[in-house]
Amino acid sequence: MRRIHVIGIGAGDPDQLTLQAVKAMGDTDVFFVLDKGAEKEDLVALRRGMLDAHRPDGAYRVVEARDPRRDQEADRVAYAGAVDDWRGRRADLYERMIADELGAEDTGAFLVWGDPALYDSTIAILEDVIGRGAVAFAYDVVPGVSSVSALAARHRVGLNRVGRPFQVTTGRRLSDEGFPEGVDDVVVMLDARQAFQRYADRDDLDIYWGAYIGTPDEILVSGALPEAAGRIGRLRAEARARKGWIMDTYLLRRRPRD
Amino acid sequence: MRRIHVIGIGAGDPDQLTLQAVKAMGDTDVFFVLDKGAEKEDLVALRRGMLDAHRPDGAYRVVEARDPRRDQEADRVAYAGAVDDWRGRRADLYERMIADELGAEDTGAFLVWGDPALYDSTIAILEDVIGRGAVAFAYDVVPGVSSVSALAARHRVGLNRVGRPFQVTTGRRLSDEGFPEGVDDVVVMLDARQAFQRYADRDDLDIYWGAYIGTPDEILVSGALPEAAGRIGRLRAEARARKGWIMDTYLLRRRPRD
Repeated sequence: MRRIHVIGIGAGDPDQLTLQAVKAMGDTDVFFVLDKGAEKEDLVALRRGMLDAHRPDGAYRVVEARDPRRDQEADRVAYAGAVDDWRGRRADLYERMIADELGAEDTGAFLVWGDPALYDSTIAILEDVIGRGAVAFAYDVVPGVSSVSALAARHRVGLNRVGRPFQVTTGRRLSDEGFPEGVDDVVVMLDARQAFQRYADRDDLDIYWGAYIGTPDEILVSGALPEAAGRIGRLRAEARARKGWIMDTYLLRRRPRD
Repeated sequence: MRRIHVIGIGAGDPDQLTLQAVKAMGDTDVFFVLDKGAEKEDLVALRRGMLDAHRPDGAYRVVEARDPRRDQEADRVAYAGAVDDWRGRRADLYERMIADELGAEDTGAFLVWGDPALYDSTIAILEDVIGRGAVAFAYDVVPGVSSVSALAARHRVGLNRVGRPFQVTTGRRLSDEGFPEGVDDVVVMLDARQAFQRYADRDDLDIYWGAYIGTPDEILVSGALPEAAGRIGRLRAEARARKGWIMDTYLLRRRPRD
């Protein structure tokens, strides 16, 4: 039977790979790579470096496909008959890749940045493919160091305060719905719009921000939000202009009231 | 100058060590081990196994100390105060261990289960020790695979739904304050009292529960809470009686309303 590993490969530092991830990469015949567009060439190169380091035998294939979210036209050409919704089209794509590229006794792998359980769709899409019943496979998930853990480690802070909860949310939610109720510590992911700027006058908030965490381009800023917000905005704009893309995460921490 | 690594060593599976953790273990002279009592001998053995595997040279020392226990009675009365007192006693202990056991050019390490950023006090205590100014050292944090990521991987679920937030909290909070506002997905840690039983009649909740995750004793249960709650209660009691301790974590997921 076909087997598939969904492998968390850490937040950017190749040494964040676990021994379990290295072993799973070691028994993989076919690596599936979803190309998310030119802006993330650095990440493609990082991933290739991991394969070079841990599969020096070279006895594997890499199957690349264009992520349907990023280039709908190319996807329609490559895989005709895609349904309209994005998740459906991704399921189409995964189903075809698995059916066409993975032999009956082969093992495939998806390499996922960070941890596959956090804001990644690979597991959900594989479940969709299984639900359709057209191709059969077994799969497992190898947990990874999340960008959230990597952020906290670089800042040497805990995500929670003693006995307290914390929340992980998206930039869109923070922007639309405001600072969540009932928590003082909020980790924000997928924030293309710098939702924290909305709180730049709140002197009870600290921010721990990081971009390209664990890579040579890493940038870290922390401090009281009113002082840090402007600096983060500038550094972020400069880095984005220089590299063409940015991946950042941050923790907003409300200080206890006196 | 003295150096200290705070190393996340994963949730129980020795293969969850990262390459970065293995390297940090490789340049450590003194490992500090806090003995939390007889009930966790298995964990001590697991940790020893990691040292045997990754430091076959044996050119290191292990310094063991008895963890100052929290005052359980005071704990019930004033939780935050009890923790402060306990933290102060732990800072005393860490300060002494570092001053007495770590040479001026030595590197020490604390091996932390899961990820040092999640419900672990090592970073906070080291900051306390630095703040006292009696011993000087530099330290870094090596992120690890958290028990939360390990739980999700074993159940092959995401922690969030698409674009939605999730919260991480404690059994005590869930028990005292109820299901948090504004989120449908709640990860519960440090739950000695099975706070989920309070919701055992809620047929809109699913649970993904795991104990001893990643170890040979691993137990996983998932399903609608009304069906799963009783089974988890029984398995948990049996396992606890058999092994003398239990470490479990779970995700409570509210199904969307129709």
